[in-house]
Amino acid sequence: ISKTRDERPIVLPPHTSESAFETALRELRELLGEEWVKCNDVALVDGDYHAVPLSHDAYHILEQDDLVPSAVCWPKDTEQVATVVKWANRHKIPIWPISIGRNLGYGGSAPRVRGSVVVDLGRRMNRVLDVSEQNAACLVEPGVQYITLYEHLQEIGLGNKLWIDVPDLPGGSVMGNALDRGVGYTPHGDHWSQHCGLEVVLPDGDIVRTGMGALPGTDCWQLFPYGFGPYHDGIFSQSNYGIVTKMGVWLMPNPGGIRPFMATFPREEDLAAAVDALRPLMVQKIVGNVPCLRLGVQDATMYHKKTEFPLRENGLIDRKKAQTMIDKLGTGAWVFYGALYGPDEITAPKFDYIKKALSVVSGAKFYERKDVPSNHYLNDYAKFTAGIPTWRELDRMQFIPNASHLFFAPISAIDGKDALRQSHMCRNRMEEYGFDYLGTFFIGHRAMHHVISFMYDKTDPEMKKRALSCIRALIEDAAKIGVGEYRTHLALQDQVAGTYNWGDGATMRLNEKLKDALDPNGILQPGRSGIWPKRYRGQGWEL
Amino acid sequence: ISKTRDERPIVLPPHTSESAFETALRELRELLGEEWVKCNDVALVDGDYHAVPLSHDAYHILEQDDLVPSAVCWPKDTEQVATVVKWANRHKIPIWPISIGRNLGYGGSAPRVRGSVVVDLGRRMNRVLDVSEQNAACLVEPGVQYITLYEHLQEIGLGNKLWIDVPDLPGGSVMGNALDRGVGYTPHGDHWSQHCGLEVVLPDGDIVRTGMGALPGTDCWQLFPYGFGPYHDGIFSQSNYGIVTKMGVWLMPNPGGIRPFMATFPREEDLAAAVDALRPLMVQKIVGNVPCLRLGVQDATMYHKKTEFPLRENGLIDRKKAQTMIDKLGTGAWVFYGALYGPDEITAPKFDYIKKALSVVSGAKFYERKDVPSNHYLNDYAKFTAGIPTWRELDRMQFIPNASHLFFAPISAIDGKDALRQSHMCRNRMEEYGFDYLGTFFIGHRAMHHVISFMYDKTDPEMKKRALSCIRALIEDAAKIGVGEYRTHLALQDQVAGTYNWGDGATMRLNEKLKDALDPNGILQPGRSGIWPKRYRGQGWEL
Ligand SMILES: Cc1cc2nc3c(=O)[nH]c(=O)nc-3n(C[C@H](O)[C@H](O)[C@H](O)COP(=O)(O)OP(=O)(O)OC[C@H]3O[C@@H](n4cnc5c(N)ncnc54)[C@H](O)[C@@H]3O)c2cc1C
Ligand SMILES: Cc1cc2nc3c(=O)[nH]c(=O)nc-3n(C[C@H](O)[C@H](O)[C@H](O)COP(=O)(O)OP(=O)(O)OC[C@H]3O[C@@H](n4cnc5c(N)ncnc54)[C@H](O)[C@@H]3O)c2cc1C
Repeated sequence: ISKTRDERPIVLPPHTSESAFETALRELRELLGEEWVKCNDVALVDGDYHAVPLSHDAYHILEQDDLVPSAVCWPKDTEQVATVVKWANRHKIPIWPISIGRNLGYGGSAPRVRGSVVVDLGRRMNRVLDVSEQNAACLVEPGVQYITLYEHLQEIGLGNKLWIDVPDLPGGSVMGNALDRGVGYTPHGDHWSQHCGLEVVLPDGDIVRTGMGALPGTDCWQLFPYGFGPYHDGIFSQSNYGIVTKMGVWLMPNPGGIRPFMATFPREEDLAAAVDALRPLMVQKIVGNVPCLRLGVQDATMYHKKTEFPLRENGLIDRKKAQTMIDKLGTGAWVFYGALYGPDEITAPKFDYIKKALSVVSGAKFYERKDVPSNHYLNDYAKFTAGIPTWRELDRMQFIPNASHLFFAPISAIDGKDALRQSHMCRNRMEEYGFDYLGTFFIGHRAMHHVISFMYDKTDPEMKKRALSCIRALIEDAAKIGVGEYRTHLALQDQVAGTYNWGDGATMRLNEKLKDALDPNGILQPGRSGIWPKRYRGQGWEL
Repeated sequence: ISKTRDERPIVLPPHTSESAFETALRELRELLGEEWVKCNDVALVDGDYHAVPLSHDAYHILEQDDLVPSAVCWPKDTEQVATVVKWANRHKIPIWPISIGRNLGYGGSAPRVRGSVVVDLGRRMNRVLDVSEQNAACLVEPGVQYITLYEHLQEIGLGNKLWIDVPDLPGGSVMGNALDRGVGYTPHGDHWSQHCGLEVVLPDGDIVRTGMGALPGTDCWQLFPYGFGPYHDGIFSQSNYGIVTKMGVWLMPNPGGIRPFMATFPREEDLAAAVDALRPLMVQKIVGNVPCLRLGVQDATMYHKKTEFPLRENGLIDRKKAQTMIDKLGTGAWVFYGALYGPDEITAPKFDYIKKALSVVSGAKFYERKDVPSNHYLNDYAKFTAGIPTWRELDRMQFIPNASHLFFAPISAIDGKDALRQSHMCRNRMEEYGFDYLGTFFIGHRAMHHVISFMYDKTDPEMKKRALSCIRALIEDAAKIGVGEYRTHLALQDQVAGTYNWGDGATMRLNEKLKDALDPNGILQPGRSGIWPKRYRGQGWEL
């Protein structure tokens, strides 16, 4: 621990004295090399999307210096990850792996327990290890970002043959996002469902390969997910049971054509009818990608800062008045973005069918690229759905100054009543707390991710507090009507995990049994998804 | 234990005296009711597909009385299953749950450890608990067979709207088959991948609901698989970590049309070219179901007994001479069965595309239903692919007297060289041991299940021994070239698990950690998938 260049005192790991920590770090430096271990004594600078700090959560919702690590280290390969894990076990120091650390809205690069050591996997383990053109599959290390995978495919001349799935912004880790079960826009938009095969360092330092990877010499690791015996992969997502060092990902072969389109619905209440009309199109897979249905106002935040909107006295957007502005963008109260894949002969009749089906909503309008101006989001959407990264989503961050996101992201049935109920619930609660409701439904084949982007000014402590209270109230509101979140910010994981309490908390009992078996010293990501190891349990760590 | 009506002495559970067992059974009878517990003292009658015994493995490959339970019990609901589990823990008696027990070829209804108590879930827990027409999903109990689910949908008037996936024979359990990761013929043919939500009784009697089921009041249990935190479902497949009492299943909405077809390839070596031509059709999802590529001779076993084939001196089918007979059936050396879904406008151009693609194999011929006689298998295939149960597969059991199946079922890449290599390896080894090679490749989007049906006369001890030695040799042959099985008979699970030994057996170490954590007394299915609880480990139980 270098005292001289301290800009900020280091937050020590729990139950660890300064001298014990010094000894431990010295050892870690010997194991990984001097330059691959750094104390977190730097000033806390939030940076921006392109420069995400490793010192703390850039989108802090608690105090800026609350969820901070004591140090960061950079292993170079799987063996070194195992070395770090064994080191953590010897010293009982909690570690927090990140692939890239751009989990903005869900905790960024920050650990849940103050003073944990962040293990930044992506910096040195960032190769695309394999691409199989014939099987449309690849094998990646943690540091492979969407943008780098995309560029790699271009470089090796397969960019036109194999498409990737990108989420809103391409700077995240293909692996980190899948492990947190994130979503994108193409038919491969459910990222977890499109992975195949993992290499995992377990919390005791043992290394496993899942599925066919357990078979020496196999050529099916990225081709067949299950292998023989229990299928383990799922327990390594949204958990603290292992550090993933390699992951197989299925790519999409060029479908021979794509037809992205937009449909607008004029009235807010149209949500119910639109969702009901969309359901059969999704269940029957007539729409083949993960389309989305977005609030018109949210769509407009792509083009306009909040100050350009007509506001009510309470400072919130006046939705009635805003309609004129939204109409100018050609957007309704709700706007649907979808895409059809295949040659024109296949997509043309499907598009006609969809237009007919959605026209049950009176006033529904349909647009293709040719119908909109060049700066229209539909053009970006066309890229997303073809797996081409864009940075357009960053425009949305201009909405308010010092904008941070928090995501409230409940799951909904593809059911008009359910969607409307959720939308009303969120709007009411958010407006009560002084926030604009900005929601998008990402629509799967049988359920929707209702992702509500909760924008706040992170330099405004009062606003942060309000945002946190509001989202806490929403989690409670939702649980009361049987609605639960698919993913949440570190600060809220205990609360959300607490709502998944069927059978008097049976799921958490199972989670804890697994945790204690795999991580008896409780060194790996204590508290992630609300799962606390034995050493931490019942000691007030929950938030 | 009623002595008077003994037809056969009861095989006691390990480490259990007769009097301890008597006490335990008395208690179990009190818990479940006298009539719901029976000792296994009946004569061992193999029966047939329609009358599968609970007393032993009807397709025994070991001695007939090797894998026999001590008793069978019939819980009536989830709570009673938990009661049985707690009872087993108190008495340290191993239990073996079955849903239906028709796992023929993989162990039937038999437990792995002699003297286990079979828990027959299906007899009293056999309801379709829910069908959602709008979401194309249902919730089933263990005893729901394919045939009963099909009939239920007809009865409630949804048969035309919602299609199920059926495997070769519809008498198995929808749940039991999915838990063993079985395969069928429609786009939902990978049964495990189409389940959504489980209710599980853990080995300590605790009851969990996975995914959204952990959220009280949810309406998304059968709609969104993951929930929040670790996704557990996979560890309850092919494992001994829990007894599943409810399972959600996605159904297929009527696609508005279906076009089943057949393609034949004249020469055995055409396998490689055919597989290579099929791969892009699968990766690109132009063929949308789980099609299969079957050896012509195997196809012919649907119509002819072995004695009707021209045989060589060694008693094996003379493939050259058999060709005339096969040609008469219109079948090539290999025959491909596939189906396209949707209205004619969609399937017609696809069919043309496929015909062109497969015509790279010279002599390839194509058939639809109109081109074949009424008793042709293609007509049954048309039913399979529309989710309509048929019993036609039973015809194959006429091939030899007292026919039993054993399945050798390695996974292959969709790669001509790989497939040909596997096919040669199997043929050579099987012929060496005096068996006809009868193989089918079930083709997924990126890998194939190469299911080889190993037919033997179970009344012929020498032949049984030969079959067992042969399949053991094949497992070893396969492992040497990096090929592994997706599923196997009880008697072979130790061996197959032993081949998945990357990292010096890391997967089994993980399996055992989980086993010890979830089942400290080792009562649930000791030995399944080669996973032995602590109490059994290192005591020579492995086969
Ligand atoms: C404007 C905006 C738009 C966004 N749009 C989307 C979107 O469309 N879809 C979406 O899904 N998200 C979206 N996000 C959220 C987030 O930015 C992305 O999900 C991002 O990909 C996550 O960060 P990451 O990939 O760097 O993962 P990381 O931060 O590296 O990891 C994510 C989580 O997984 C854990 N983890 C990472 N790697 C490993 C490993 N190897 N082993 C074990 N655990 C590991 C980490 O501890 C962390 O909890 C958006 C965020 C913003 C601000
Ligand atoms: C001629 C023939 C053709 C066949 N064709 C096919 C085919 O096309 N596809 C295919 O997949 N199989 C096929 N099989 C194999 C087998 O018959 C089926 O897979 C059948 O569905 C399995 O039996 P079951 O459904 O009764 O399951 P069960 O025997 O009840 O269970 C299967 C396994 O899962 C375990 N299990 C069952 N229920 C539970 C539970 N609730 N909780 C925990 N563990 C449980 C059991 O212990 C057992 O190990 C075929 C067999 C024959 C003889």
